[in-house]
Amino acid sequence: MAAPIPVDAKALADMALFASLPVPVRAAAAAMAGARTVARGVRIFDQGERAGRAHALLSGCVRITQSGSDGEEGLVRFIGPGEIFGCVPVLTDGLYPADATAMVDAVELSWDPADLLALMQRHSQIAINMVAIVGKRLGEAQERLRELATQRADRRVARTLLRLLDQAGRRTGDGVQIEFPLRRKDIADIAGTTLHTVSRIIADWERRGLLVTRHRHLVIRSPDRIRAIADAPGN
Amino acid sequence: MAAPIPVDAKALADMALFASLPVPVRAAAAAMAGARTVARGVRIFDQGERAGRAHALLSGCVRITQSGSDGEEGLVRFIGPGEIFGCVPVLTDGLYPADATAMVDAVELSWDPADLLALMQRHSQIAINMVAIVGKRLGEAQERLRELATQRADRRVARTLLRLLDQAGRRTGDGVQIEFPLRRKDIADIAGTTLHTVSRIIADWERRGLLVTRHRHLVIRSPDRIRAIADAPGN
Repeated sequence: MAAPIPVDAKALADMALFASLPVPVRAAAAAMAGARTVARGVRIFDQGERAGRAHALLSGCVRITQSGSDGEEGLVRFIGPGEIFGCVPVLTDGLYPADATAMVDAVELSWDPADLLALMQRHSQIAINMVAIVGKRLGEAQERLRELATQRADRRVARTLLRLLDQAGRRTGDGVQIEFPLRRKDIADIAGTTLHTVSRIIADWERRGLLVTRHRHLVIRSPDRIRAIADAPGN
Repeated sequence: MAAPIPVDAKALADMALFASLPVPVRAAAAAMAGARTVARGVRIFDQGERAGRAHALLSGCVRITQSGSDGEEGLVRFIGPGEIFGCVPVLTDGLYPADATAMVDAVELSWDPADLLALMQRHSQIAINMVAIVGKRLGEAQERLRELATQRADRRVARTLLRLLDQAGRRTGDGVQIEFPLRRKDIADIAGTTLHTVSRIIADWERRGLLVTRHRHLVIRSPDRIRAIADAPGN
């Protein structure tokens, strides 16, 4: 673990958890937070472990994965700058439900769970913001479940890319780049299909000029055409 | 719609949304709520419609279903007594994300979204309770997603039954009954498999004495043996 980093209240201004809050409240939350750099590949917390801290990401990205009793590991989501992770256990069973691993060098903030809970009790807007964040994630998970049951793999992959664009898209010269360094296997996990199927679909879309892979990043050259695939009639 | 029913604060005592709250706060929430009976089969709200009310169930059960742009409908969850539904849109985009239909004659409470939001602002514990409720549902959805990607259908059906037992199990003379009137198709939707597969698995378990169907209700005679199937090694 690197040396502690001072936390500036401005760093919290772009976080959905602290939206619509007066500056002094953000300052109080910043004063309670600890910040640290996390090197690429470092495990931030382990599934099943007592949730000793509640986390948010300042920069970089984090992969959240979950294993079942059978040991099979699946990707749950990516966390980008400004997003919280490992915070819900503060209000439920106190155990991390998944593993969190830095995908690139990252800077995270974290709070003592009791401090975050006290902040939420004192400032209901923080709790209300958290309902909105968790509610949005629930909506996405339910959408994925429905898609898994009813849609063709290429539509599910298209929808997965659109959701990642929405979460972490950055406009470049020739399209919109997804800021997470994506493995084909990650896309397969989110879309609920096999590595083989995803590789075939992505290769086809690359050939057709819809996207291009650049240094482990996908650049979507034509989001509209990906959207057309996602919305295509039939299964 | 039937005539309005007076709402007693005691009715709110068993709701997770109002847990750990002083009696006067529950009384205030009760005073703001409207109650009505809903006959079996009646649609309570429609997907995509403006969320004009935030809902909770006093008795009966409600089926939440969601359709995609392709028109395919899937079951999202069952709502039992004491549970909230159609409340998250108050804090997100203001639109119901799914349809809600009474599965049996039911009594529901509902609030004006602005009233519920004001309650949450004034009493942060209500917002905190809502994070815990939505967070638990998110955890379940993620578990289902992981299972879909990695597990055999019989294990997924077993896990589906265990989750329903946990949500709505009532001990009877010869086992534990799931209080929701379940169609085989509902179980298939939740477990992410086909009606045909579920019918085959349930028939097999009936033959082996693990469960019995009684007036549209499943009675699990041996939860331990269902749990053993859910936890069986291998996929």
